[in-house]
Amino acid sequence: MNAIATIAPAVDIAPLRGFVTSFAELLSGTRDEQAVLDSGHALLQRLVSRDDWLPAAYAKPSAERYQQYLLHCDSRERFSVVSFVWGPGQSTPVHDHRVWGLVGVLRGSERVEQFERDGAGRLRRRGEAEILEAGSVDSFSPRTGDIHRVSNALADQASISIHVYGANIGAVERATYAEDGTEKPFISGYANTTLPNLWDRSRK
Amino acid sequence: MNAIATIAPAVDIAPLRGFVTSFAELLSGTRDEQAVLDSGHALLQRLVSRDDWLPAAYAKPSAERYQQYLLHCDSRERFSVVSFVWGPGQSTPVHDHRVWGLVGVLRGSERVEQFERDGAGRLRRRGEAEILEAGSVDSFSPRTGDIHRVSNALADQASISIHVYGANIGAVERATYAEDGTEKPFISGYANTTLPNLWDRSRK
Ligand SMILES: [Fe+3]
Ligand SMILES: [Fe+3]
Ligand SMILES: [Mg+2]
Repeated sequence: MNAIATIAPAVDIAPLRGFVTSFAELLSGTRDEQAVLDSGHALLQRLVSRDDWLPAAYAKPSAERYQQYLLHCDSRERFSVVSFVWGPGQSTPVHDHRVWGLVGVLRGSERVEQFERDGAGRLRRRGEAEILEAGSVDSFSPRTGDIHRVSNALADQASISIHVYGANIGAVERATYAEDGTEKPFISGYANTTLPNLWDRSRK
Repeated sequence: MNAIATIAPAVDIAPLRGFVTSFAELLSGTRDEQAVLDSGHALLQRLVSRDDWLPAAYAKPSAERYQQYLLHCDSRERFSVVSFVWGPGQSTPVHDHRVWGLVGVLRGSERVEQFERDGAGRLRRRGEAEILEAGSVDSFSPRTGDIHRVSNALADQASISIHVYGANIGAVERATYAEDGTEKPFISGYANTTLPNLWDRSRK
């Protein structure tokens, strides 16, 4: 591989900038979670309706495990926007969030399995596994259940989804779950030490 | 130089994260510009009272010209935080801002010259040139005059200041000024395509 091949083509990140600004305006206008999820669903659906704005650095799978790249965090940590990249066959553990979330598939296809506790406190599957194709959006809330496992539905290529959460999700103290329902404390952090600069309008 | 020498020591960016959060809370609590400048002055003074949190990538001078590195932009572009790095002898052109601003010197020393228009529309110096030492903070507003030139006061080393503006300053349409007062349109942009990730509390 020569040096030229390692230079990723520049993308126009304006759609992400517009999404962040619109989402912040939405949050400033209402404190009703369902209204945020409903309007946020429409905003995210617009964002993932095109796949030409995510810089390559935030779309890179790792052979080790799925990657979570922070794209933007609000100044007061009211919300964060994260790119999740699953290599072929990769999967999250079963985990919760403790804040509302929206998931929009940008590239590939993902399998979402939901879980809930039974009367004995054990974890059981809730409903059928759902397949989300590129362009589709899903949401969840602790009000209605936020325990799930997400996997790449494709065996031969990466899948990428854009997630929005009602907090700085990488810093939230939450949990992963063993099959018997045992919780293990979990703070996800982020894979990236630098974020894309969304804000330079002087670049084309 | 061997490979080890090129790896900058990691810094704990928590002071900048705290500053951003506090500044956003300040802006959410008042729309009075003078209150923002007064309270913002105290916040910025605290931030530049220690010089152990700015990652090396945002402290690098260029032989070509002074550098402006965006550190954080608010989701709704209500404010931005920028690291300015002047090499020895470097200077900005005379320029305006069209929004309020705060300047805190982090490292070295800077010379600030203020300008105003005279009756004939020509630019003249207002007051004496001011020398700002590390740890000191200055502010300006279009209400009271926001045309200035900032220079590195040191001939033999870089100086660095942290600026806060009431907008995404790199995208603001503003002006530089010739000696005769002629305005030239100016959008500064930023030197950096990636921002520091302030938000990963799982890192030390
Ligand atoms: Fe999840
Ligand atoms: Fe200035
Ligand atoms: Mg659903």
